[in-house]
Amino acid sequence: MNYPNGRKGVSQRSSKQGKTQATFSNRGMTLEEDIALTNDYYRHANIAIVHKNPTPIQIVNVDYPKRSAAVIKEAYFKQASTTDFNGVYRGRYIDFEAKETKNKTSFPLSNIHQHQIDHMRACEAHGGICFIIVKFAIHEEVYFLPAAKLFWYWNDQFQGGRKSIPYDHMKVEGELLPFHYQARVDYAAALDKLYF
Amino acid sequence: MNYPNGRKGVSQRSSKQGKTQATFSNRGMTLEEDIALTNDYYRHANIAIVHKNPTPIQIVNVDYPKRSAAVIKEAYFKQASTTDFNGVYRGRYIDFEAKETKNKTSFPLSNIHQHQIDHMRACEAHGGICFIIVKFAIHEEVYFLPAAKLFWYWNDQFQGGRKSIPYDHMKVEGELLPFHYQARVDYAAALDKLYF
Repeated sequence: MNYPNGRKGVSQRSSKQGKTQATFSNRGMTLEEDIALTNDYYRHANIAIVHKNPTPIQIVNVDYPKRSAAVIKEAYFKQASTTDFNGVYRGRYIDFEAKETKNKTSFPLSNIHQHQIDHMRACEAHGGICFIIVKFAIHEEVYFLPAAKLFWYWNDQFQGGRKSIPYDHMKVEGELLPFHYQARVDYAAALDKLYF
Repeated sequence: MNYPNGRKGVSQRSSKQGKTQATFSNRGMTLEEDIALTNDYYRHANIAIVHKNPTPIQIVNVDYPKRSAAVIKEAYFKQASTTDFNGVYRGRYIDFEAKETKNKTSFPLSNIHQHQIDHMRACEAHGGICFIIVKFAIHEEVYFLPAAKLFWYWNDQFQGGRKSIPYDHMKVEGELLPFHYQARVDYAAALDKLYF
């Protein structure tokens, strides 16, 4: 794979002011948006097929006006029974959750729910590859953490351990995902390194 | 795997009328409901992890009343970018669409959309296993058809071929999925036979 070397913070000439400025091409993008673009790129470049699972909605009332699209008039958010993303990469089932934190020193485990842990455990037991992607917004860093390591911290919190994964641990236990112009959250590179 | 031999049409004693009647335990169940129950069973019996993808919804307006759940007041159905179901079975990514037809002699290909074909092609190219499950309601029969065979019929319709898969062909090209009490649409048995 040949990625354009489109790192963040590349100097660009502003045509308006006629002088050079540092710009961040992902400024204002959420982690989820960056992953959506990455998935689009992976799909079009024939690297992986991964989609975000739609948010499950309980529909209560739908209006069907003549000659136009059905309008949902009353509906409620339901709790998802899976994680956010799944798909297939190099013949393997992959499944992951993405979370962003504004916390500077740790990733609070309250961002993850028990049913997501249960789902990831089940998928791993059947040969799937599960992981989480965590963005530390303040550090502008994105980490890939394999499910097995997440499970360790998850269990530890119920045995008197901490209720978060320290940023310093994430730097050691996780894989830093560098920003690329197209593969903005290049988790496939981490999968290659860790599982293939 | 040991399935209870709970076939359809088993005689049961009706306590009300005090006489034996033929009953159909899946009477009134849609194919989708039967697959949902099958997926629940597979999950609890540790056979496979498969979920239905929620219907994608474009949310336009949400009301957040104090002290109660958010109410979606205006939303629209969006076209899905994937098929209905996906998950992991014996280490492989699986992905399928389920369709029910009241047609007696054939399964009209208009039940399938081009984007679903594209999605299945892409998943198969990456090592996933894709298929469709077709229920002929009148015959009370459910068939498993591998994506490769579906693709053949799909392409053929654009080269002067028929726009449907004849029921007689389905009987030969597909796998009849017998009804079991728990695995009501036992696609895992067909996967075992065809892919493992």
